[in-house]
Amino acid sequence: MDIKSYVLKMAKEAKEGARAIANVSSGLKSKVLIKMAEALEAESGMLIKANKKDIEGAKKKGLSKALIDRLTLNKKRVKEMAQGLREVSALPDPVGEIEKMKQRPNGMMVGRMRVPIGVIGIIYESRPNVTADATGLCLKAGNAVILRGGSEAINSNKAIVNILRSVAKKHGIHEGVITFIDIPDREAIMELLKLEGIVDLIIPRGGEGLIRAVTENSRIPVLKHYKGVCHVFVDRDADLKMAEDICFNAKVQRPGTCNAMETMLVDKKIAKTFLPGMIKRFKKAGVKLKGCPESTKLDASLTPVNEDDFYREYLDLILNVRIVKDMDDAVRHIAKYSSAHSDAIVTTNHEKAMRFLREVDSSAVFVNASTRLNDGYQFGLGAEIGIATDKIHARGPMGLEELTCMKFIVLGNGQVRE
Amino acid sequence: MDIKSYVLKMAKEAKEGARAIANVSSGLKSKVLIKMAEALEAESGMLIKANKKDIEGAKKKGLSKALIDRLTLNKKRVKEMAQGLREVSALPDPVGEIEKMKQRPNGMMVGRMRVPIGVIGIIYESRPNVTADATGLCLKAGNAVILRGGSEAINSNKAIVNILRSVAKKHGIHEGVITFIDIPDREAIMELLKLEGIVDLIIPRGGEGLIRAVTENSRIPVLKHYKGVCHVFVDRDADLKMAEDICFNAKVQRPGTCNAMETMLVDKKIAKTFLPGMIKRFKKAGVKLKGCPESTKLDASLTPVNEDDFYREYLDLILNVRIVKDMDDAVRHIAKYSSAHSDAIVTTNHEKAMRFLREVDSSAVFVNASTRLNDGYQFGLGAEIGIATDKIHARGPMGLEELTCMKFIVLGNGQVRE
Repeated sequence: MDIKSYVLKMAKEAKEGARAIANVSSGLKSKVLIKMAEALEAESGMLIKANKKDIEGAKKKGLSKALIDRLTLNKKRVKEMAQGLREVSALPDPVGEIEKMKQRPNGMMVGRMRVPIGVIGIIYESRPNVTADATGLCLKAGNAVILRGGSEAINSNKAIVNILRSVAKKHGIHEGVITFIDIPDREAIMELLKLEGIVDLIIPRGGEGLIRAVTENSRIPVLKHYKGVCHVFVDRDADLKMAEDICFNAKVQRPGTCNAMETMLVDKKIAKTFLPGMIKRFKKAGVKLKGCPESTKLDASLTPVNEDDFYREYLDLILNVRIVKDMDDAVRHIAKYSSAHSDAIVTTNHEKAMRFLREVDSSAVFVNASTRLNDGYQFGLGAEIGIATDKIHARGPMGLEELTCMKFIVLGNGQVRE
Repeated sequence: MDIKSYVLKMAKEAKEGARAIANVSSGLKSKVLIKMAEALEAESGMLIKANKKDIEGAKKKGLSKALIDRLTLNKKRVKEMAQGLREVSALPDPVGEIEKMKQRPNGMMVGRMRVPIGVIGIIYESRPNVTADATGLCLKAGNAVILRGGSEAINSNKAIVNILRSVAKKHGIHEGVITFIDIPDREAIMELLKLEGIVDLIIPRGGEGLIRAVTENSRIPVLKHYKGVCHVFVDRDADLKMAEDICFNAKVQRPGTCNAMETMLVDKKIAKTFLPGMIKRFKKAGVKLKGCPESTKLDASLTPVNEDDFYREYLDLILNVRIVKDMDDAVRHIAKYSSAHSDAIVTTNHEKAMRFLREVDSSAVFVNASTRLNDGYQFGLGAEIGIATDKIHARGPMGLEELTCMKFIVLGNGQVRE
C-alpha cells in the first residue's frame, strides 16, 4: 500500500473510533484509563526491551546524550506514564456539559453542549511518554487520536500503542480510538495534514522547526505553541523583596522551560536600589547576565545585550536585563519582543496592575507571581496537552476542555422561522 | 511596490491599528459605529455613484442577473448597512469580561479575561454590505480588520472604506483598524494568507471554491462555513401536525439559505400516515421531490433519488425524501451525509430527543424546531459574521464573542513555583 492510501486508511479508522468513543460513558472511559495504566506497569519489562532497540538505533545514529535521555524508558518512567493516565482518569469528564441555556422570545430554549472534537492528530518528537499522555487526554475528552511519534522512538511507541489498543478492545471500545502511523517518512505527515474533513485538529509537540513545518502545510486547524520569550517587569512601586524572589524563581527554578523569564525589565526609578542585590543573587546561581547600556553603566560586569537577544528563548541560565523609563515603556517592550506566552508585573499599585493585565496580550498575564506558574496543574486544569500561544480556540495551558468544543442545542415545541 | 510588499505594509498597518483599538473604551467604540452609520447615510449618493461603476463593469463582463443584484447598492440597502452598524453598536461589548476566577491552593487567583483576537482578515465576494458589516463586528470586539472584497465590487468597497476610515480618524481611532487590499490579483490573497504572526485569523465569506482555496493555502487559522446539507427527522412518536409545519418551514420559507432542509427523513412506522399530506403541501408550494425506493413505492410521482443527491446542497425548492427504519437509521444517515450544519428531530419521546441531541454532531441540533432558526439573531447573539461548520474556536453562528479569545490572568501576592 502506498503512503497516501495507508494514512487515509488509518484516518478513516480513527474517524470510526471517534464516532464510537463520543458516546461512551464517563464511567467506562475512566475505568479503561486505569486499566491502561495497570497494563503499562504489568508490561514494563517488554516496554523497556522495545525501548532498548530505539536507544541502540539512536546511539548508532550518533544522537546527543540529551536526546537519548529523552528517549529512554525505565521502570520509574513507565510508572510515571501510568500515573499520568490515572490522574487523567480522575479528572471530571467535560463531555455533555450544557451551558447558557436561555429562553428566546419565541419560547424555544437555546444553549450550548460540550462535545468531543472528533479525530485529533498528535505529531511529536522523541519522548515516548507523549504516546500515553496524549492518548489519555484525547480519550477522556471523547476523541480518537492519531499518533505520529518520532522515528527514533518507533519501537517504544508501537509497544505502548499495542498495549493501549488491546486494553481498549478488551473493554469493548473501538480500537480506532488509538491509531498509530507506523511509517517513518515525512511524507506520511504531509498526507495526514491534507485530510480535512476526516481529521479535525492537529497538535504538534516538539521544536520550532517541526511546528513551523506542520503549520505551513496543514489544511486542518493546528493548536500550537512556539517559543516562550517571557518577561518580568519590576515596577517602581514594587515590593522589592517580592520582586527579587519572583524574578529569581522565574529565571532559575527551571530555566529550560517555556515559561522561564528571558528578559527582566526594571523601572528606572528603582534600578539603583533593586539591581545590585538582584544581580548578586543571580550571579551566585550561575546566571549569565546581559545588560542594556543603562544597566551596564550601573554594573560594568554585565555583557552588553543586543537587539536580537531580546527575541531569544535561551532555555538556559542566561538573562537580559533592561532598564525602562516607566510601565508604558515596559508594555511597549513586551508588545515588541514577547512571544505572548507568560509575562508578569511586580507592583503594589492597583491601577498599574489592572492596566498591565489589560494591555499585555499574552496567554497568561501575572500580577505579583512568577511566570513559572503558567501550567495546567498550577492553574487547576489538571494535566495539559501543551500551552497554546495562538489566540484561536485555546490560549495558555490546554487541558481537557480545550480538547472539546461547544455545539448549539435547541429545545422547541414547534417553533419555525417567521 | 510589488504585491508582496504592499500586502505586508497593509498588514503591519492593521497590526498597529489592532494595538490601538484593543484598549479603546466601549463608549467610544459604540459612538464611532453610530457616527459611521450616519456618515454612510449622508454619503449615500456618492456610494451609489461608485457602485454604478461596478455595475457597469459587471454588465460588460456579462455577470449573471443574480450576481448583479447582489452587487447593487441603492438607498434602501445603504440604509440597511447603516442600520446594521447601529445594531452592532448597541450590543454589549465582550472585551474585558472576567470569568472563572478561582483561588488556587497557594493563594493566587487564576481566571480568564476576554480580549480581542487582534488582526482579522475578511476575504469575501460580491456583496459590498459585507464591508460595513464585518468592519462593525470586528471593531466592536476590539479587532483591526483587513478587508479583501471581490474585484467586481472594488469601487463600492473603496468608497465605503474611505467613509469608515475618515470617521475613525475624526474620533482619534488609528486608521489601521480598517485596511483594505486594493489589488484585484489573487496573488494578494495568497500573500495575505502567509502572514502568520501578523494576521491572527482569516474569515472567508463566499462560495465553496473561495473557502477551499483559502483553507488550502492559509498558514493562519481560518474560521469557515462550507455548505449546509441539513436534515429533519420525523420520528414515529412525532406530533405529525407539528412535524409537517417544521418540515415545510425548513424547506420552503427561504430555500436559498444554508440552514434550509435538503433531506427529510421519515420513520417507516408513520410514513404512510405522514407522507401523503406532507407531499401534497410541498407540491402545492412548487417543491420538486426526490424519493428513496420505499417512498416512491408510496407515491410514484416522486423522482428516484440517487446517493449523490444526499450530499447536495440544493439551495432551491428541491427535497430528498428518505424513509428510515428508526432513529438509529436516521442518525446514521445524518452522520454520513450531513454537512454538520443544522439537523432536527421532531418527536414527543424524551429519551429519543435527548439521544438525538447528544449523538448528532452538528453545529446546531434541534428538537421540535425548524433548522431555519440556526441564526445569530434567532439564538440571541445579535449580528453574526457567519455560521461555522468547523469545530475549532467557534461552531454555529459567530457573533461578537467568537471574535474574541480568553487569556489567563493571575493575581498573586508573591507566589513562585516550588
